Amino acid sequence: MTDLSFLDPVEDDLRRVEAVLGEHPPEEHEAIGLALDHLIEGGGKRLRPTLVLLSAHLCDASIDQAILAAAAAEMLHTATLVHDDLIDGSLIRRGVETLNASWTPAATILTGDYAFARAAYLVAQTENMRLTQRFAETLMVICNGEIRQMFNGRYRANALMEYQRRIYAKTASLIALSAEAGAILAGDRPAEEKALRTYGEEIGTAFQIVDDVLDFVADEETLGKPVGSDLRQGLATLPVLLYVETDLGPSAVRHVLEGERSSDVVEEAVQAIITSPAIDEALTMARQHVDEAKTALDGFPDSLHRTALLGLADFTVDRHF
Amino acid sequence: MTDLSFLDPVEDDLRRVEAVLGEHPPEEHEAIGLALDHLIEGGGKRLRPTLVLLSAHLCDASIDQAILAAAAAEMLHTATLVHDDLIDGSLIRRGVETLNASWTPAATILTGDYAFARAAYLVAQTENMRLTQRFAETLMVICNGEIRQMFNGRYRANALMEYQRRIYAKTASLIALSAEAGAILAGDRPAEEKALRTYGEEIGTAFQIVDDVLDFVADEETLGKPVGSDLRQGLATLPVLLYVETDLGPSAVRHVLEGERSSDVVEEAVQAIITSPAIDEALTMARQHVDEAKTALDGFPDSLHRTALLGLADFTVDRHF
Repeated sequence: MTDLSFLDPVEDDLRRVEAVLGEHPPEEHEAIGLALDHLIEGGGKRLRPTLVLLSAHLCDASIDQAILAAAAAEMLHTATLVHDDLIDGSLIRRGVETLNASWTPAATILTGDYAFARAAYLVAQTENMRLTQRFAETLMVICNGEIRQMFNGRYRANALMEYQRRIYAKTASLIALSAEAGAILAGDRPAEEKALRTYGEEIGTAFQIVDDVLDFVADEETLGKPVGSDLRQGLATLPVLLYVETDLGPSAVRHVLEGERSSDVVEEAVQAIITSPAIDEALTMARQHVDEAKTALDGFPDSLHRTALLGLADFTVDRHF
Repeated sequence: MTDLSFLDPVEDDLRRVEAVLGEHPPEEHEAIGLALDHLIEGGGKRLRPTLVLLSAHLCDASIDQAILAAAAAEMLHTATLVHDDLIDGSLIRRGVETLNASWTPAATILTGDYAFARAAYLVAQTENMRLTQRFAETLMVICNGEIRQMFNGRYRANALMEYQRRIYAKTASLIALSAEAGAILAGDRPAEEKALRTYGEEIGTAFQIVDDVLDFVADEETLGKPVGSDLRQGLATLPVLLYVETDLGPSAVRHVLEGERSSDVVEEAVQAIITSPAIDEALTMARQHVDEAKTALDGFPDSLHRTALLGLADFTVDRHF
């Protein structure tokens, strides 16, 4: 069973974050309010808010400010998902119908834009200038990463480096910002900030690697999409990159990476990855990142919140969803 | 000839704004950099940066901060245009090919998102918390306005009120923010802030009314799109609303507002508006807003920059582009 006890120390705070996320400014159009509620209630593990809150407790930052920053992080994450789903043409995310499936593209673009604006508004409410700047920078990194992926094609010689760069932009950058947010809010704590940022980058990297492994080994119902969906679109994630590193000859996997899309070849490629040692190798790499993350917290004295952050690090690889 | 001498006092500052707009962070992907350069060089009257700069001079604010705020306002404006063009399916804006025409929708969405992030980053660089908050709020207003327009349909009984609300959200809100930005940067000047905001709301309203008039009376080449393009899509702007207020019987215009799209009826409707008194009535209303804007500056002592703001107000109705 997955240990979620790392949530305990911030259970009450998380309820306040939910309340902030559920607020609707009076001038907000009903349609946009319903869409945002649907998206926010629709799921997510609240990983980013949890990190902001634990980090704030660890650094004795203002919890009122941390609640706002936590809501901002979740809202920014939601905004990027809205546009991602539109770009990918995804109709389902975690079994919940995406906005894209039921709305027009125009309404989906605007809902995403509005969520960006609300995220910017929420972080600005913390009155912390540096954190507000870091949010804007992180959104630049995220957008850049997606543009890179789009323009640089899906498979190249330095694919492993590209993969690391991509998952940093896509996932680790915002998780790192969430983890360091408490130190930034506390103010003038460069060592704690750096340690928490490293912790966040490492668990963010592990989190995305595990997502990419689950894309092969979880069942379709849990995924809410076909097994191996990235590879089916020609996108090489870590298990695939590790597979082709050792399997140098021609293979179904290579054919798919080179553009082959006939369903029997794609199916063979997906099965080849699932039954290969690449899955375990990828998980081993994820665990190494988690170990690095935990080591980064060595400088903090033992506490309830430090223990929770260590537990959260383990969760990123032990989870099954 | 249109008098553009209101630009003279901020000519050097505007060059610095252009330099900031042309900066590319090292990690920025080449494709996104080229796209943004294309969009920003592609035009615009730099109305918003000019307002920020004149307002900053008028209130003795830091010009270094104002340069950043001016660039942020232009970047936010650009970001909203990128997504607008995608939503409208516009292929041409002011004769320049829109991003949408040459890029995929996905790349266009991401370029807009990146421009939002850069705008947020630029305003946060001013280190002025209130201005940063006001930028986020204004983006919420803009998105809300577009969603309203999308969901509330294109013609209703209280159409004139809806029109005012729509042009506030679409145009006047960001122009008002640009005009008040100097007072916000100067700090603790509630009377100046309020006066400049009123000035900005009034010229922003006038500016959009004139845009809506030019949509009927300018030539196709200047517009870069067909004459009467809003009405062709069933959107009732001020000239149309004033027309149907006095012309109560059945008419081509009413048929188009009720959904008729056959080309001869649409053509007849467009011609009916162009040759009606509604055009002059709309321009008279725009001039009234300009007069209100100028009155709002009564409290400021005479100066080079106040004179320029008065000239800029006149420009919003005297322009032909």
